[in-house]
Amino acid sequence: MAVRGPGFASDNYAPMCPEALEALVRANEGPAPAYGADAWTARAEAAIAAWFEAECRVFFVGTGTAGNALALATLARPYERVLCHEAAHAIHDECGAPGLVGGGVRLTPLPGAHGRIDRETLAGALAGRADVHHGRAAALTLTQPTELGTVYTPEALAGLCALAHGHGLRVHVDGARLFNAVAALGCAPRALGPDAGVDVLTLGGTKGGLGLGEALVFFDLELAEGFAWRHKQAGQLFSKMRFLSAPWTGLLEGDAWRRHAAHANACARRLAEAVAGVEGVRLAHPVEANAVFLELPAAVAAGLEARGWRFHALPAWGGARFLCAWDTEEAAVDLLAADIAELAAG
Amino acid sequence: MAVRGPGFASDNYAPMCPEALEALVRANEGPAPAYGADAWTARAEAAIAAWFEAECRVFFVGTGTAGNALALATLARPYERVLCHEAAHAIHDECGAPGLVGGGVRLTPLPGAHGRIDRETLAGALAGRADVHHGRAAALTLTQPTELGTVYTPEALAGLCALAHGHGLRVHVDGARLFNAVAALGCAPRALGPDAGVDVLTLGGTKGGLGLGEALVFFDLELAEGFAWRHKQAGQLFSKMRFLSAPWTGLLEGDAWRRHAAHANACARRLAEAVAGVEGVRLAHPVEANAVFLELPAAVAAGLEARGWRFHALPAWGGARFLCAWDTEEAAVDLLAADIAELAAG
Amino acid sequence: MAVRGPGFASDNYAPMCPEALEALVRANEGPAPAYGADAWTARAEAAIAAWFEAECRVFFVGTGTAGNALALATLARPYERVLCHEAAHAIHDECGAPGLVGGGVRLTPLPGAHGRIDRETLAGALAGRADVHHGRAAALTLTQPTELGTVYTPEALAGLCALAHGHGLRVHVDGARLFNAVAALGCAPRALGPDAGVDVLTLGGTKGGLGLGEALVFFDLELAEGFAWRHKQAGQLFSKMRFLSAPWTGLLEGDAWRRHAAHANACARRLAEAVAGVEGVRLAHPVEANAVFLELPAAVAAGLEARGWRFHALPAWGGARFLCAWDTEEAAVDLLAADIAELAAG
Amino acid sequence: MAVRGPGFASDNYAPMCPEALEALVRANEGPAPAYGADAWTARAEAAIAAWFEAECRVFFVGTGTAGNALALATLARPYERVLCHEAAHAIHDECGAPGLVGGGVRLTPLPGAHGRIDRETLAGALAGRADVHHGRAAALTLTQPTELGTVYTPEALAGLCALAHGHGLRVHVDGARLFNAVAALGCAPRALGPDAGVDVLTLGGTKGGLGLGEALVFFDLELAEGFAWRHKQAGQLFSKMRFLSAPWTGLLEGDAWRRHAAHANACARRLAEAVAGVEGVRLAHPVEANAVFLELPAAVAAGLEARGWRFHALPAWGGARFLCAWDTEEAAVDLLAADIAELAAG
Repeated sequence: MAVRGPGFASDNYAPMCPEALEALVRANEGPAPAYGADAWTARAEAAIAAWFEAECRVFFVGTGTAGNALALATLARPYERVLCHEAAHAIHDECGAPGLVGGGVRLTPLPGAHGRIDRETLAGALAGRADVHHGRAAALTLTQPTELGTVYTPEALAGLCALAHGHGLRVHVDGARLFNAVAALGCAPRALGPDAGVDVLTLGGTKGGLGLGEALVFFDLELAEGFAWRHKQAGQLFSKMRFLSAPWTGLLEGDAWRRHAAHANACARRLAEAVAGVEGVRLAHPVEANAVFLELPAAVAAGLEARGWRFHALPAWGGARFLCAWDTEEAAVDLLAADIAELAAG
Repeated sequence: MAVRGPGFASDNYAPMCPEALEALVRANEGPAPAYGADAWTARAEAAIAAWFEAECRVFFVGTGTAGNALALATLARPYERVLCHEAAHAIHDECGAPGLVGGGVRLTPLPGAHGRIDRETLAGALAGRADVHHGRAAALTLTQPTELGTVYTPEALAGLCALAHGHGLRVHVDGARLFNAVAALGCAPRALGPDAGVDVLTLGGTKGGLGLGEALVFFDLELAEGFAWRHKQAGQLFSKMRFLSAPWTGLLEGDAWRRHAAHANACARRLAEAVAGVEGVRLAHPVEANAVFLELPAAVAAGLEARGWRFHALPAWGGARFLCAWDTEEAAVDLLAADIAELAAG
Repeated sequence: MAVRGPGFASDNYAPMCPEALEALVRANEGPAPAYGADAWTARAEAAIAAWFEAECRVFFVGTGTAGNALALATLARPYERVLCHEAAHAIHDECGAPGLVGGGVRLTPLPGAHGRIDRETLAGALAGRADVHHGRAAALTLTQPTELGTVYTPEALAGLCALAHGHGLRVHVDGARLFNAVAALGCAPRALGPDAGVDVLTLGGTKGGLGLGEALVFFDLELAEGFAWRHKQAGQLFSKMRFLSAPWTGLLEGDAWRRHAAHANACARRLAEAVAGVEGVRLAHPVEANAVFLELPAAVAAGLEARGWRFHALPAWGGARFLCAWDTEEAAVDLLAADIAELAAG
Repeated sequence: MAVRGPGFASDNYAPMCPEALEALVRANEGPAPAYGADAWTARAEAAIAAWFEAECRVFFVGTGTAGNALALATLARPYERVLCHEAAHAIHDECGAPGLVGGGVRLTPLPGAHGRIDRETLAGALAGRADVHHGRAAALTLTQPTELGTVYTPEALAGLCALAHGHGLRVHVDGARLFNAVAALGCAPRALGPDAGVDVLTLGGTKGGLGLGEALVFFDLELAEGFAWRHKQAGQLFSKMRFLSAPWTGLLEGDAWRRHAAHANACARRLAEAVAGVEGVRLAHPVEANAVFLELPAAVAAGLEARGWRFHALPAWGGARFLCAWDTEEAAVDLLAADIAELAAG
């Protein structure tokens, strides 16, 4: 029976998926070389390369904050700027991590409807002053799916990458929920990575069903030169690395990643459809992955909280955010939608 | 049957101990608040406070490098120095992590027999110049047990803390193997922490039997002010924190921590005793915890490697290092000792 | 005879004023202790304290970028944010200096008409989220006069300081042109510093008539604890400090500072008044110090450039910026105004 | 008449030489473009290039600490190490400046008689471990003349550069007193710079007779890519740059640099020769430039201080340091030598 609870607050409220846990338990056998020289880590790296159908260098990190900050510190020198969407996680939610790891690297926010940067906006930013009184831009970081639950199509992504590259910038993708984007678009993973021209990508594991950890994937192998030392310096080289890496094999060697992501996406659509006709409730952004942003009357929001639901109030970004995860129950979605309808009806 | 293998290379070659794994699996149930607001994390924090019998603030981190660097960055401002033993992990093995996180914080090495700093050496260092042409010392960091397998007694530790505090320095302990020290000394944990005057301590979980993670423990609660933001900025605030914290309950709520540490210590003593009479082989340092440093003839070292054993050649620190862990088999110790004797004989 | 030239581009195009040069030459006599232990430096520090009629700690630095960055790094820890006006020099023009020196310190821009932050805007910013997913604000930095040529009255400044202090923030003032503000307001210098509640202030020397250097002035003496080491670490402790400090005595021991600033302000007003009636030309901001921002038709701007005038086109801030300095000739102002009128007439 | 005084404490106790002052005064004429776009700065850059007879990129900085730190931050990434002599200024006297500017860059000290690193020592250091548990070396920094008053010959310098380059390291020279080395060796400046294989050099102006400032000279032009932004970010881009740059023309366009350096060197030799036969007094290091290190009986040292002389007691480096400058009077040298002899006799 579905119960009201905190599950919609974030997709990182979910436990490990069974496939990740199983791989973790299997990796717990006998001694193994430390610091990533073990067989599980090699296998997980190979699984990621196979998933992207690309040659790449993979480094496992503990958190998305670490992965993003290390990527940006690699792409930009301390005195350079990184362009991002004004809703980007990296500029708001990471306490200045890129600036710490990157020695002062700054993020420059760009506007864009529904969380997406468009070509014209990027072109305008690239045409601006870049002298020593302004700092020059060295990289573009994009979130896929965006912070507002929309996705960049392979074509849109490739267009932005080409424009950035043409101005000498590198491109990083924060793919905390990349599995959701791939599942939603029905494309090959490589279409959202190397084929689009992405140089470095943070592949989110936690929100996809792992317990801990993300993977930093370099498609431009030269950028990875020296990164092993940076990884260590930043406190991200885990001694028993196999316990960070092995769960990836559970996700990627079969279709668990897609199944879980597709399920979360379907739950989000189900929620969006269920509240579509509710008076006073409106979708703030198209639902293209596993997030639903709803403009809710204050009384409805308060009523949901009172009934035990948890979600993020994000007035600056259009409304309340509900996230679905691999473990979201359809019955819980229906119960939530019914509560919204009931509260909206007054 | 015991087999020759890599297990003596480091105590981080060992898998998770059963108690840690069991707690991890039990934590994998349903949604839970993210970023450490879950019940498992609160319980693990309480277990650490209870273990130290002290009021303290606990932050879980992914690696010892991160824990040590964050601690030193909290104790010293960017232009200040931290005193350490010349064999300290923080100065050699962490790629400059304290300098990165601490904005230029430097480590000043002090000599000392068998890995220990003694009072006279510390007093001499504290009497040195501290003007702007030298940088002043703000903290002392001690490794317990030391990098060379010896321990500081509670009295020695308290003496160093008092001396440091008397000069306005704070004290950090890198307790990557603190369980081994407590088990070896037979003292209360608090005798190596708050009772001795330690301000901040990195409590090693991985080497004690966890899969991932260490705990940073502030006994001086004022030092923890603002640390939550630093923790996040450094990429150490894990979203599904329960999977980093829960295993600590398995170690600490019973006596698993002591049983495992005592076992590793006993294996080290067993090895030391077994090679005591071997011609040409000598203990480089007293065996006081779970490490054995042996001066070995080159042919013996090469012979061991050829037979499949792995260990660290550390000529600067007196010889080859063999580490025992919670999973070391006594039969493997005996087999290793027999191989050493056989090779030394000719 | 007045000539067309680059002088209006910035007040840092001006040479040293005679009083500064004279003091510099007089300081060039015989050996003197290095690193600020000389008599000239003590005298210059005393002159600044006397000017502010306040107990304070003074550190001479080479540039405003250095002064501002060091001040902000002292007020905010690496994971904290500093609030500033969206036109602030520190966020646009210093290549991320605060982030470099402050280990990731970030600036959060606030809007405000004519370059000024008002109470309501500040109150709103202080009411926002400050948890680890956002970073907390530790300081407010204000530019006086503002980047757009307006000033904060003593009352407005005191109000902002009180509001910031009430929320636990410290206040820094970037006083690159503070002499102009004091001369314009006709107040005591202390009214724009300690009396208003300012904690640290960058007192601009270069734009006031020095050749090189600014002074960082701590009114909160506790904040200066340890700063001598930070100053050295940042490469700002000049060995022959007397040559940076002595010129301040020329400016401050008599009324040179006020005479020069008042002259520059008068030139700005003269320009503003002279173009007041010109068709198609409009003041973008009130002229309250030594800067004039003019909305100019493109043809007028181009025509001025063609005739040899230099100024900054700052479309984002309302128009072309003309700055007057201690050496601006009234005849040059009149010639510039006549050119504007002539070009505007077609 | 010669007087006892502080002049031997350091060569930065000296005033500006007349040639530097004259150029400074001449640069103080009318408005000039800011931030180094003026004619004096171009002329000073050209003078330095001509002096080295080499194509190079020049950046003026305020202090040696800034110049060295910026150079090392350019040569080494945050997680890399820089090799230096154990007496190097950069490791002892700069409060961790390279670590601040370089995001954690560390200095690794190497031993060497009389302040010089020799080939064997460097070769040994380059043969050491460079994995992620140690950090790899990216650069070698040499002080010329050394901290102990000796010089590297062009051949020795070229040998070290070749060895370093062969291992992929870049070479920086801290030439705070390079004029003294060139004058002492009688070689072309380029023999101690580009011809020897030096990549970046901090050319000391202050100790050579300027009032403020040093020059950072890139012989490897590619290394200068992006440096203009770094220079600005570090607070080293002076707005009225002409006052930092113009004095260089006074030193370099004639032979003032050589005349002053040769005079200081001759004074040092004069002092060394005068005390050569004094019982109980011994030269700690060969006198090859403008520094004299004397082993002095404690009573002699105390007696000198009591008579008003100032010098640096540097017991770790062999004794008391006396530095001669462009303004040292031969009579003062003779008086000092007589005092030493008298005190030693009695």
